[in-house]
Amino acid sequence: MIFKDDQLQIIDQTRLPAERVYITLSSKEESFDAIARLRVRGAPAIGIVAAYTMYIVARRSSDLPLSKMHSELDSAARYLQKSRPTAVNLSWAIRRMQAVYKTANHPDTATLIRSMRAEAVAIHEEDARACRAMGQVGAELIADDFNILTHCHTGSLATGGWGTALGVIYAAAEAGRRLHVYVDETRPLGQGGRLTFWELMQHNIPCTLITDSMAGSLMRAGRINLVLFGADRIARNGDVANKIGTYSVAALANMHAIPVYSVAPLSTIDADMKSGADIPIEQRSSKEVLQIYGYNDTLLDNASVYNPAFDITPAGLLSGIITEKGILGKPFDKSISKILNLK
Amino acid sequence: MIFKDDQLQIIDQTRLPAERVYITLSSKEESFDAIARLRVRGAPAIGIVAAYTMYIVARRSSDLPLSKMHSELDSAARYLQKSRPTAVNLSWAIRRMQAVYKTANHPDTATLIRSMRAEAVAIHEEDARACRAMGQVGAELIADDFNILTHCHTGSLATGGWGTALGVIYAAAEAGRRLHVYVDETRPLGQGGRLTFWELMQHNIPCTLITDSMAGSLMRAGRINLVLFGADRIARNGDVANKIGTYSVAALANMHAIPVYSVAPLSTIDADMKSGADIPIEQRSSKEVLQIYGYNDTLLDNASVYNPAFDITPAGLLSGIITEKGILGKPFDKSISKILNLK
Repeated sequence: MIFKDDQLQIIDQTRLPAERVYITLSSKEESFDAIARLRVRGAPAIGIVAAYTMYIVARRSSDLPLSKMHSELDSAARYLQKSRPTAVNLSWAIRRMQAVYKTANHPDTATLIRSMRAEAVAIHEEDARACRAMGQVGAELIADDFNILTHCHTGSLATGGWGTALGVIYAAAEAGRRLHVYVDETRPLGQGGRLTFWELMQHNIPCTLITDSMAGSLMRAGRINLVLFGADRIARNGDVANKIGTYSVAALANMHAIPVYSVAPLSTIDADMKSGADIPIEQRSSKEVLQIYGYNDTLLDNASVYNPAFDITPAGLLSGIITEKGILGKPFDKSISKILNLK
Repeated sequence: MIFKDDQLQIIDQTRLPAERVYITLSSKEESFDAIARLRVRGAPAIGIVAAYTMYIVARRSSDLPLSKMHSELDSAARYLQKSRPTAVNLSWAIRRMQAVYKTANHPDTATLIRSMRAEAVAIHEEDARACRAMGQVGAELIADDFNILTHCHTGSLATGGWGTALGVIYAAAEAGRRLHVYVDETRPLGQGGRLTFWELMQHNIPCTLITDSMAGSLMRAGRINLVLFGADRIARNGDVANKIGTYSVAALANMHAIPVYSVAPLSTIDADMKSGADIPIEQRSSKEVLQIYGYNDTLLDNASVYNPAFDITPAGLLSGIITEKGILGKPFDKSISKILNLK
């Protein structure tokens, strides 16, 4: 994600690795579409896009009176909110942008627009710093010759920095650790096969692509030392909503006594969710699963496909949650309440 | 598979579900190619194709003297053996065909050819009967409103009859049981997505396609009552080699206290293998995994992909093995020795 000359540009992730196409987002509709179609994805990244989009909406309303600009922003907030339901960073970033015009008095629209811009940039920069910090925190867990399994994509395309789970891997590699990454392809949309595998190869990190179904037998063969993945939303009790398949990976790792960490900035924790059962899970089109199989339209119309985009990994399966402020441990309700200063 | 007018025809499984293309196999080279490229797959089916191919080789050598025909057959046996390494039904069927000319004295080539034909037909018909019997045995495990999870493809395309694990499902449906099948798509080659899902829809069996990564969260949600899959080779201790991903499915099912059965004819048991560790696991091309991701050739050349076609499910994870002679239970070394009359 690039914000330069007041323009927001993203790489269209749906076209990687075949093509590297940049698109400019200059309206709430374009951002909504980019998020809903997964042209930009990754919980932190969609939060940052939403923040910049709120700024863009303010800028485009510069001719309106202040009160009208507020209602434009409220309407944009409600609209963007609906682009994807599971990642909490989206509503978190929107709320931060709303706080700018709801809690501070701005004398005129020009001042408000400048404040909105500054807040969006701050959200972006804070995330980049959080990635660095998570990387340093998590790298301590990685010893030489570790084989790390990761699921989905959590790198620079998915965040404002170098990534969450991948950030930890980059930090360990930067610190000179010899490591190798097994990449779950992450069906149906192949974020592992298309994005993580591509990004790790770009960074010269030794990596091997596997189908999601292979992780278990690698664990049984003693070939995985550590499992790292991101999070789309973390409940107050430590339950993690993340890409479909994360639960299986975490459960299998537990069975084989392999440590499992979710890597996420504190902005991914949603203290309003008591447990994972409260987190809304997005259901996506059956075509995402079926399209590689060459069914004709009649069969497609009759086909029943279950395609949740996420699942819930219960806190009990996690060894810890790696954040920019350190590793949260069990019991997670306590460590989360403490780090967020919750009562 | 159809054997009619002395011709062996198979449906090219690599072209389903888009096209239903029949191909005729009339030489050992054509059969080898069809097996190696998975135009025909499924442990029982490749055994039957090998048996008919041995007959075809005999028929094509009808002008040769008897001793020369024997050496043609020996050479065909060695050649076909190499088409795929894991499924034991291949070598089992070849050995049965070899026994025809090695253990009985045939006065002339015409008599031998007739005996070879009869043995190949017998292997085919026995497998069809075994499928029926396994179906009846296994159907007892299925109660009304069961949700059954299956992995890979074990239906009529994979056997000489209506299938192994799918045969059990067909038998239960035939007996009037209300049931629903969750079909693992079975990456990388999608035997579940392309073949099982298609075959179940053809038979009007209610079914839902999922990615392999979704089975775990369905189990956690209490939505799976029974797991059924086939086998490519079963060791003497009950360890099962089956399609990659079977181990994960079985391990997750155990964690959720869901019964797990392998369904296989006795011809799939290889008493020479003490345990699963002895069973050779076929490694296949990285392209099978990567081809859907649109990598260019340079990236493809550098890409490291782990692509074992099978994994081993240790006997301890199985509730039982459903065979044409009943359900084998633990300890499997005892039940297998007994059913095969081993010492």
